[in-house]
Amino acid sequence: MAKTKLISPHGSDELKVLLLEGKERDAELKRAEGLPKIVMTTRETGDLIMLGIGGFTPLEGFMGKADWKGVCQDMKLSNGVFWPIPVTLSHDKKLDAGAEVCLVSGETNEIMGTMKVTESYQIDKDFECKHVFGTTETEHPGVQKVMAQKDWNLAGPVKVLSESYFPKEFKGIYQRPAESRKIFEEKGWKTIAALQLRNPMHRSHEYLAKIAVEVSDGIYIHQLVGKLKPGDIPADVRVKCIDTLVENYFDKERVVQGGYPLDMRYAGPREGLLHAVFRQNFGCTHMIIGRDHAGVGNYYGPFDAQEIFHNLWDGALECKMLPIDWTFWCYKCGGMASMKTCPHAKEDRLFLSGTALRKALSEGGEVPAEFSRTEVLAILREYYAGLKDDEKVEVKLHGHATGDAKVDKKK
Amino acid sequence: MAKTKLISPHGSDELKVLLLEGKERDAELKRAEGLPKIVMTTRETGDLIMLGIGGFTPLEGFMGKADWKGVCQDMKLSNGVFWPIPVTLSHDKKLDAGAEVCLVSGETNEIMGTMKVTESYQIDKDFECKHVFGTTETEHPGVQKVMAQKDWNLAGPVKVLSESYFPKEFKGIYQRPAESRKIFEEKGWKTIAALQLRNPMHRSHEYLAKIAVEVSDGIYIHQLVGKLKPGDIPADVRVKCIDTLVENYFDKERVVQGGYPLDMRYAGPREGLLHAVFRQNFGCTHMIIGRDHAGVGNYYGPFDAQEIFHNLWDGALECKMLPIDWTFWCYKCGGMASMKTCPHAKEDRLFLSGTALRKALSEGGEVPAEFSRTEVLAILREYYAGLKDDEKVEVKLHGHATGDAKVDKKK
Repeated sequence: MAKTKLISPHGSDELKVLLLEGKERDAELKRAEGLPKIVMTTRETGDLIMLGIGGFTPLEGFMGKADWKGVCQDMKLSNGVFWPIPVTLSHDKKLDAGAEVCLVSGETNEIMGTMKVTESYQIDKDFECKHVFGTTETEHPGVQKVMAQKDWNLAGPVKVLSESYFPKEFKGIYQRPAESRKIFEEKGWKTIAALQLRNPMHRSHEYLAKIAVEVSDGIYIHQLVGKLKPGDIPADVRVKCIDTLVENYFDKERVVQGGYPLDMRYAGPREGLLHAVFRQNFGCTHMIIGRDHAGVGNYYGPFDAQEIFHNLWDGALECKMLPIDWTFWCYKCGGMASMKTCPHAKEDRLFLSGTALRKALSEGGEVPAEFSRTEVLAILREYYAGLKDDEKVEVKLHGHATGDAKVDKKK
Repeated sequence: MAKTKLISPHGSDELKVLLLEGKERDAELKRAEGLPKIVMTTRETGDLIMLGIGGFTPLEGFMGKADWKGVCQDMKLSNGVFWPIPVTLSHDKKLDAGAEVCLVSGETNEIMGTMKVTESYQIDKDFECKHVFGTTETEHPGVQKVMAQKDWNLAGPVKVLSESYFPKEFKGIYQRPAESRKIFEEKGWKTIAALQLRNPMHRSHEYLAKIAVEVSDGIYIHQLVGKLKPGDIPADVRVKCIDTLVENYFDKERVVQGGYPLDMRYAGPREGLLHAVFRQNFGCTHMIIGRDHAGVGNYYGPFDAQEIFHNLWDGALECKMLPIDWTFWCYKCGGMASMKTCPHAKEDRLFLSGTALRKALSEGGEVPAEFSRTEVLAILREYYAGLKDDEKVEVKLHGHATGDAKVDKKK
């Protein structure tokens, strides 16, 4: 039998790591200090770090116009490689080709990298938003960010000089693709499913993860530690929730946890595809796509993100989708179930809207253990207790309302 | 996107159906009546029917010596096609090549088919048993049947004239591969997992089936309606158990039921492979392999049947294994789980030995609903109530003991 070999990175035989280290980094950093500064948003900074650690293999920098247009329109780079979402850098003026610039984080003022400009171009933002988000409505938090971009996009290969605060602030969670790959190799895993998380992990997420464990060698619980929309639960709280869940309810040998530095774009289906692309770079063979993956509000149908995977051309993407239906506890089934496995009525199922959960957690109401493990609820209660009243208002669990609380339903 | 197409039959572009119908059958039946009779065992009769309906595609009849030896030793027919278990016909004397014979069921005396003998040969039964069953001990019910074979094997292409009592006695359950394929096609299913059943369906089987539903388009609950070892639960009772389970706990749209006419061989790993081969012929892309698949007593390690799939050569078998670990209810998990997903202690898990279950069912003891659905238990209680005392002794649930009953454990 052939020796176990991990899945190749996307569109490349090896990870394209653009992060410099040691002396090479020192020299480039010194050089950067003398270059004109471009200030990046958190989304651009997150993208740059992903370029640095090889999470965006095979990209070598921010996209030029041909790539941008191909990606928006056909999900295809100009070299034919599949890519679902533009990775671009904006600036308020045109720069000449050949210009060298220093890339600075607008959040921390740290020098993050350098770029050799190959192209400055203007884009039709409506065109991008329509293709990528399916909407141009500025209430959409992803559209908002695109519309707020400056007038020019700068393209070119990058050298990355820092991973910002992520390695320190999310120590033990933040991970490079080379690190997760090493762990998978050491474990001898061949089939690995990735679970995308940006919300606290309740029993429905646990169920997704456990189905994946049943049918794969292991699960990669891969959490977003970049920026969400205002009011979402912060990453450190979410990390604690996952930790306690893994500690108490998983075979730890079957779970690897990791965090990645991107901002949410809330691009729904397109972002689901991007999630699979970079999970492949992290070494995963499967990407779990559940209900309303990477969605927000009611912009996407609950299973649009599954549908889009079915419509890719052959060979577009090696990492396969593991589609799972809408999951919940069913009192008649006497267990976790999904719309695919449970035949019972709505009244037999436990649904909790974000509003009801928020209210219960912040006002001390009961939340059934069939919705969320008591250990997880305790952490969330503590977090809500520490919030000021005006901070509580914005907190939302999901874009789609999931029905009313049924906290008094007994088994 | 390419139109949905079912998996091809094993080693062939189309089903090899050797069953004659209509006028062609009438003529061959008339001819058969004048031919020398070969009386078949139930195992041979079941094999012949499978040959007839295309379940054993690409075989064209009972195997000759080269195929027999290749299958025993290397799981390979002489033409290189993968095949894991001999399909042979025994007789008490040698017949000349070219002889035409009439194949008769020893159970019903019905004429089942005809064969044109191409070869008569003797076999080393120990060699067959060692390779296929891993043992020559005659307590093994599969070994017993091989050892009871007559001195000669007859090989040759067959024409099949009857499906015996299966279509009538198991109306609505017994199915030809062309029928299940038609159903799958009409449903537009692409990925279909087969669940092999020869025991009543308890919650652990339900859990296997539901995992498969979560990750595939649907499940084919494919039940053996041929002969088991003495004391096992008869097929009609098992059919009733499955019916009530599907009726009450499954989305019926995701389930297709079928029955097949083979005897159990109890060949463990080798039989697991045969199960996958003929499930592919029935249109399935995946074969669920759980704990002690097709095992008996302690002849096989609990996951030997999963191991053997990993060791096949590339391209041997298109139908893939869906391996699932030992499953049970865990009180701490608060749900069904497996050794892969549950981190808790033995005491937290609900195990019931065959002996304990039998005792509880026949003497009216309690069986937890977490082990088996009340609707299923009611059917089994009724069956046990109708048995004479001496019939109860032999009834066994599983080969491997699974620990003691824990009927008083509360959630």
